[in-house]
Amino acid sequence: MERQLHIISTGKQPLDQFVAICARVHPYVDAIHVREKMKTAREISEFLTALIKQGVPPRKIIVNDRIDVAVVFGVKGVQLAHHSLSVRKVKHHFPSLSIGCSVHSIAEAMEAEESGADYCIYGHVFATGSKVGVPPRGIESLRSVVNHVNIPVIAIGGIHSNNAEQVLKAGAQGIAVMSAVFFADDPVSEAKKLAKIVKKMV
Amino acid sequence: MERQLHIISTGKQPLDQFVAICARVHPYVDAIHVREKMKTAREISEFLTALIKQGVPPRKIIVNDRIDVAVVFGVKGVQLAHHSLSVRKVKHHFPSLSIGCSVHSIAEAMEAEESGADYCIYGHVFATGSKVGVPPRGIESLRSVVNHVNIPVIAIGGIHSNNAEQVLKAGAQGIAVMSAVFFADDPVSEAKKLAKIVKKMV
Repeated sequence: MERQLHIISTGKQPLDQFVAICARVHPYVDAIHVREKMKTAREISEFLTALIKQGVPPRKIIVNDRIDVAVVFGVKGVQLAHHSLSVRKVKHHFPSLSIGCSVHSIAEAMEAEESGADYCIYGHVFATGSKVGVPPRGIESLRSVVNHVNIPVIAIGGIHSNNAEQVLKAGAQGIAVMSAVFFADDPVSEAKKLAKIVKKMV
Repeated sequence: MERQLHIISTGKQPLDQFVAICARVHPYVDAIHVREKMKTAREISEFLTALIKQGVPPRKIIVNDRIDVAVVFGVKGVQLAHHSLSVRKVKHHFPSLSIGCSVHSIAEAMEAEESGADYCIYGHVFATGSKVGVPPRGIESLRSVVNHVNIPVIAIGGIHSNNAEQVLKAGAQGIAVMSAVFFADDPVSEAKKLAKIVKKMV
């Protein structure tokens, strides 16, 4: 897998704002995660309908937790967490979906790999506004996780254009950002900057 | 379709209590709905695993809203509401599932039928503790709904053994209860009583 740039919805932006940003930045990113944990299936569907209508390719869209919504919209895959259906069951029943698994330790990353996850997202690496009060896991722990699994590890948590390079140097196969792009003054410029960092690391 | 007795989880009972009741009453009911709206996919999975382990036949189990969880556990079907994925999309992508649709008016019932729902649940017919402050829709409105659609209409809301018969006489193809069974002093006796009323109406 080529190194990747994932962007993840914040759960805090209204549909119009989120979709408008995605419509402009999707050429520079590999995956857009719709992670709207407080929203109903119908509301998530409205996000997906709008994204696709605005030209975001379904093969770049990943739905958090709701496998059924991902299937119905024919998008690339799902991102599963501890509170989701198990990776093994999802892999068995929905083999055509790409399955990402959110992990927070070496043990969880190894379990994700063994269960059939296609990649994992590990974090949070740096301090981040979305995990206030939980100490960041740091670059060295990221390196350990990368060394213990063969599936790609995408790093998440407080990553932006000033620290993305050290994350990739630690072995991450990519980075996932939320606020760095969605709350940027200029989301397109930030996405381009991040994509450039990710792609030049070969 | 034969007349049916559905029982629906209250969202207020712990797993052990809910499953223990289901293990004893399932022979008398046609469908058990796992409707735990505040729970994660993983938690709902735990409910299903326990139900099946305790001998409840998967063909009697219906999962509220989460089509993915229903598919993974191979249960009978799903119950969809306004906030769920659309009946049409679910029918198209998961044709083997039985699809119930919760409706609150003639128009919604007609739309459910047209979209491919296998049955609808209409209510609430009588006043109920789970819809405090919302006036009940009454027997006459149930009769109107029944007269406007060809799919089976299951009545819900404040139904127990003392008023079930008038609901069935109004044309409902069955009844759905929550507290009448799950909060009964003797759930088995209540389920038997309700089943007898439902089955004698031919």
